[in-house]
Amino acid sequence: MAVEQRLPTESGEDRLIARYFAPLARHPGAFGLSDDAAILTPPEGHDVVLKADAIIGGVHFFPDDPAHAIGRKALRVNLSDLAAKGADPAGFLMSLALPEGVTDEWLDGFARGLEADVEHYRCPLMGGDTDRTPGPTMVAIAAFGLLPRGKMVRRTGAQPGDAILVTGTIGDATLGLRLRHDPGAANRWHLGDAFRDHLLRRYLLPSPRSAVAPAMRTHAAAAMDVSDGLVGDLAKLSQASLLSADIELARVPLSEAARRALAAEPALLDEMLTGGDDYEILCAMPPDHVTAFRSAAGALGVAVTEIGRFAGGEGTRFIDEDGKEKTFARASYSHF
Amino acid sequence: MAVEQRLPTESGEDRLIARYFAPLARHPGAFGLSDDAAILTPPEGHDVVLKADAIIGGVHFFPDDPAHAIGRKALRVNLSDLAAKGADPAGFLMSLALPEGVTDEWLDGFARGLEADVEHYRCPLMGGDTDRTPGPTMVAIAAFGLLPRGKMVRRTGAQPGDAILVTGTIGDATLGLRLRHDPGAANRWHLGDAFRDHLLRRYLLPSPRSAVAPAMRTHAAAAMDVSDGLVGDLAKLSQASLLSADIELARVPLSEAARRALAAEPALLDEMLTGGDDYEILCAMPPDHVTAFRSAAGALGVAVTEIGRFAGGEGTRFIDEDGKEKTFARASYSHF
Repeated sequence: MAVEQRLPTESGEDRLIARYFAPLARHPGAFGLSDDAAILTPPEGHDVVLKADAIIGGVHFFPDDPAHAIGRKALRVNLSDLAAKGADPAGFLMSLALPEGVTDEWLDGFARGLEADVEHYRCPLMGGDTDRTPGPTMVAIAAFGLLPRGKMVRRTGAQPGDAILVTGTIGDATLGLRLRHDPGAANRWHLGDAFRDHLLRRYLLPSPRSAVAPAMRTHAAAAMDVSDGLVGDLAKLSQASLLSADIELARVPLSEAARRALAAEPALLDEMLTGGDDYEILCAMPPDHVTAFRSAAGALGVAVTEIGRFAGGEGTRFIDEDGKEKTFARASYSHF
Repeated sequence: MAVEQRLPTESGEDRLIARYFAPLARHPGAFGLSDDAAILTPPEGHDVVLKADAIIGGVHFFPDDPAHAIGRKALRVNLSDLAAKGADPAGFLMSLALPEGVTDEWLDGFARGLEADVEHYRCPLMGGDTDRTPGPTMVAIAAFGLLPRGKMVRRTGAQPGDAILVTGTIGDATLGLRLRHDPGAANRWHLGDAFRDHLLRRYLLPSPRSAVAPAMRTHAAAAMDVSDGLVGDLAKLSQASLLSADIELARVPLSEAARRALAAEPALLDEMLTGGDDYEILCAMPPDHVTAFRSAAGALGVAVTEIGRFAGGEGTRFIDEDGKEKTFARASYSHF
């Protein structure tokens, strides 16, 4: 029984924090991680948006993923939610559980990867804790965003006639995961190195759409990020507003790499639309906002595609080019 | 490799959240856990205080601890920090990792225990996630407190001449842990059932001093909670203010149960002062505030004891009744 076994070192955890994590605490309210808690002071008239999501080795990432990607992935899955809600990143807390045998090299890579994202997303580490675990590495992040009061983009709020939009491309990460399990698929799908690497990267490290958060709160009626598969997440978004959704399958945006894989193995489509890990934004928008939103997002390098419309009634329909409805064996991923 | 294995159920996690955790989301900004993020709107002129700490089965609690205690312990260790900083509880996020084989009965107990604390501490669940893990149960909580702007009680800020105070009693939890590992000690320590159970309870479930948070921000110059042992935590508090501390060993408050154990086995004193899990508040206070603070805390049922004074210089000294300094082999607990 390892419960509360006492170790001889006084300040090992303190040293680890000072060496690897204090440099990430670039917020005056984090006090360089030297206090027991941090302070966030929202600008007047602003709300704090709160989100927590954890990733676990062997469940959400591969134990042999590069260390620099693991902390970033944990942060980015949370930033993806904040972006969909229209919130600008403000900071995060992290509880890190590390197995025996973690090396300084691994910790250094982990911290440096995270540091790059702290910088890029302007999202400083505000605090947290580090523990030994007899289990796999677990990175539990709670992220905080800011937005003007009452402006959070909810799941509810879509209206009949609203356009259904999605950022980026769908299905890449699922194909990247397939390639991790089955590297030979790259040849069967005629991918070449560049396309293969694109899909692998999309699984390894999401690209949260933080840049478009301000445009989201200006234009979107309802939104969520696509993390559990487009089909299932669209069903959730539709149900939240008590609407039905009609999607034109041919308009669902796919990367060149995904198109090539799909051409080689058409049955992949199901997996691409239900597999998850996309971390794109799915939203409802009044049609007269679409051009302005597309333009604002485009200026930030984020592609936006209109894939369908909300209507009265219920249910989500994916319609192919022959006008036939496509059905799915399961809508999305669940742990339970 | 279990990474992202797809399961046939669409909404198992959603059902689990709706059944066990939505009833804990008693905050309008939590939206009944039906959205992807929550909103916290601090009252004007207030700061948000942020804290994250996780507990892991086999490390911070025993896998056979009653389910109702585990979520509460995870919440309470965070509330203890907020209380020491002078912040009133406002809400929390929870990332819960569950091993295979967790039963509905366990989940029900876990959620009901947590619900009692949500009620007692007025600290609603704001969001989070639930995952399967191949490792032990892990409960990662990020807790949020509120206080008037600039009023957080820092680790720094003590002055020479400030009184050193501690709430409650010290060493109980460490003895409770000893009793878990070595139940026969109860007889050797001549405890009887009531004293034994007192010590076991103090280890199983901390009692964060949330009630005195307002008095802390009114009266304390510097503070932290005692979670890693009085000796080590006092050293941290002293170092933060660049001061020395003199403690009269005889004044360190002990419970009746702890006194009895100590009488039977005097060598326990080291463990009681360095063992941790006390979750009491240690603070520095100008002497002219002590009476008012003691009175305010007493009215809330929280005992406060003055155990020593800060002075210039450095180092912490524990002085026994013969005027001799007691030394310790190690100051506190560390995972690394």
